[in-house]
Amino acid sequence: MVLMRKPIITLLTDFGNKDPYVAEMKAVILTICPEATIVDISHEVEKFNIRMGAFFLASSANFFPKGTIHVGVVDPGVGTERRAIVVETDKDLFVGPDNGLLMLAAERQGLKNVYSIQNTDYMLPKISYTFHGRDIFSPVAAHLALGVPASAVGPKIEDYVLPDFAKPSVDGEVIVGEVLHVDGFGNVITNFSEDFLRGFGLNEGDLINVSVNERSFRLRLCKAYGEVEKGELLAIFDSYGFLEFSVNLGNASNFLGAKIGDKVKIKLNF
Amino acid sequence: MVLMRKPIITLLTDFGNKDPYVAEMKAVILTICPEATIVDISHEVEKFNIRMGAFFLASSANFFPKGTIHVGVVDPGVGTERRAIVVETDKDLFVGPDNGLLMLAAERQGLKNVYSIQNTDYMLPKISYTFHGRDIFSPVAAHLALGVPASAVGPKIEDYVLPDFAKPSVDGEVIVGEVLHVDGFGNVITNFSEDFLRGFGLNEGDLINVSVNERSFRLRLCKAYGEVEKGELLAIFDSYGFLEFSVNLGNASNFLGAKIGDKVKIKLNF
Amino acid sequence: MVLMRKPIITLLTDFGNKDPYVAEMKAVILTICPEATIVDISHEVEKFNIRMGAFFLASSANFFPKGTIHVGVVDPGVGTERRAIVVETDKDLFVGPDNGLLMLAAERQGLKNVYSIQNTDYMLPKISYTFHGRDIFSPVAAHLALGVPASAVGPKIEDYVLPDFAKPSVDGEVIVGEVLHVDGFGNVITNFSEDFLRGFGLNEGDLINVSVNERSFRLRLCKAYGEVEKGELLAIFDSYGFLEFSVNLGNASNFLGAKIGDKVKIKLNF
Repeated sequence: MVLMRKPIITLLTDFGNKDPYVAEMKAVILTICPEATIVDISHEVEKFNIRMGAFFLASSANFFPKGTIHVGVVDPGVGTERRAIVVETDKDLFVGPDNGLLMLAAERQGLKNVYSIQNTDYMLPKISYTFHGRDIFSPVAAHLALGVPASAVGPKIEDYVLPDFAKPSVDGEVIVGEVLHVDGFGNVITNFSEDFLRGFGLNEGDLINVSVNERSFRLRLCKAYGEVEKGELLAIFDSYGFLEFSVNLGNASNFLGAKIGDKVKIKLNF
Repeated sequence: MVLMRKPIITLLTDFGNKDPYVAEMKAVILTICPEATIVDISHEVEKFNIRMGAFFLASSANFFPKGTIHVGVVDPGVGTERRAIVVETDKDLFVGPDNGLLMLAAERQGLKNVYSIQNTDYMLPKISYTFHGRDIFSPVAAHLALGVPASAVGPKIEDYVLPDFAKPSVDGEVIVGEVLHVDGFGNVITNFSEDFLRGFGLNEGDLINVSVNERSFRLRLCKAYGEVEKGELLAIFDSYGFLEFSVNLGNASNFLGAKIGDKVKIKLNF
Repeated sequence: MVLMRKPIITLLTDFGNKDPYVAEMKAVILTICPEATIVDISHEVEKFNIRMGAFFLASSANFFPKGTIHVGVVDPGVGTERRAIVVETDKDLFVGPDNGLLMLAAERQGLKNVYSIQNTDYMLPKISYTFHGRDIFSPVAAHLALGVPASAVGPKIEDYVLPDFAKPSVDGEVIVGEVLHVDGFGNVITNFSEDFLRGFGLNEGDLINVSVNERSFRLRLCKAYGEVEKGELLAIFDSYGFLEFSVNLGNASNFLGAKIGDKVKIKLNF
């Protein structure tokens, strides 16, 4: 990997935007690497929701330039024996806890190496037991931004934690998946990928029979929200390539009564 | 317009701060123009509220240095036939949907040219139907920041959409206007401009008879919140030059029962 | 103090992230000092809560590089006779209202000089009565970032306002303090400092008898949240060195029924 001249470090946490925790991470990074451009991915991941964090990181990481360093901190095990890792892919570097948070994004980019962070040269002199985002992950990321190779942080490991994310299954004439995320517009994002559904012959304009939480809906696969009337339900492949249920100028999550983790079924008769 | 050496790109959306959508826009911008300084104006515009977005943009744009590039995405018509535009003013450039969002700010600066974005050289290779903020507006803004002239994005147009914002009217001895915005402090900002009201002889220290939603209040025009007692209502010209109702160390929106769009009347007998 | 080549300016306000107020401050700063790196500490300080703002600033300021310029705006007295000040410490500069907001952080760094801002050369040409954050504090900070000495803003003063923050007291065998902050995880941060409590012989592993609002709890001082079971209460020295009550993977504020300002007692028999 060739590092860019002006490194980019992204931050993804469940710390919220009220407390000064994120600012402290930025302070540590800018102290070590003043040239870093820091970009917030989100700090409003639900507390301890590794899966939501992993989804956010996997959604956005590929839009950044090659060589970007991503710091992810959704870390219910902070201060315990869980490892801290640096993940090297064909494109980027990821820094955070070894709990699966980083791996969905990393696998999309082509996983190369995972290192266990042990070299205290790249940490703050005093490590708290409650805030490794500031004391370990941020200074490690800043040193990587300065050009320190990933392999310098500690030994290569093979037994890193892989996330347990649902994949859709086929049950007779029905595909079974679930709600991956509900965004701020109330769009309901499923774990049905575009490639997967097109493999069954689904095309724009087709009508789909969907059931969410045992309630059934019939809706059309569209290319744009505005193809249906205001307030009407539609299906669309979102900008990440997942099937999404939306209401034009409305809130599909409320309309469907759907929340993250809910079961979604699609009949294969479109 | 002479471009600055280090370009500034501002972002205004209704995407919220939870989802990673804004980060993806920044990723696209920094990939094309690594030198850009990106400033968030707000991402908490109410969903699809073009008028609130237009007010935020018009309020803040003039404080930025000449040559700033403003990206605005409050875009209920994304993916439909609505056009994407670049607006050139005497001071800045604006990029976004052709739905009026950009024009309040642009007209304040002196409108020069409006171009319809059609040149795919300045867009992402793959354009989604749901996220033009990332796939069209951000890369166009980044190319403008690199020095691409506005006229290169597409043909000049004259039939752009102008916003339909309320202007106050005079009805006998009463001026009739409305609530333009309620800010986070509960300050109630009206569409009565300082110039307009001073034309009727209003001065600091005058008592004003105001009615909001048919309830009447009598309050003094002040220069500072602290001129009245804690919890007391006052009127003040806000930092944008609009008449604002405030409660010193309190919440005028709650006090008046006023929300965005409510009718406000002032008697011309101060 | 030697200024860094690329100055850092931090912003702390109670303006919220919805309105464009913070963006206007950044616009003013970047107009005067385009090279400034601006870092948000928080804009979600509770409205007019000087004490919360002072705590956030004191918590985070020391992690920034020497020479950082901190702008704090929690300013219930804006537009009245309260002074605007620049505070010079052994490490940094602080800019904001003279209401105690800046002094907790400044005293931690070693207070050197306090100046009353009076030189209009370093303010915007037009000063509003409602938004000194944009019209005075931001341009002053930007000029300091350009190398203007703090003493140039106005006369040195000695009668600045000191904050009135609670210190714990000892009452027989009981130490009496209070809740300083409740963070986004529901962690309850007290005003008992690590040095203070270790002086009474408290060590990790000790059991502590605590009462909050007259309800009693018995809990263990831990080094990491994960040392107790999920849902169990613990005490821990947080990353700022204050005693904090937490629930592993849960919300201690809800568990204890504790909010900011509540009285906390600890028995000296651990």
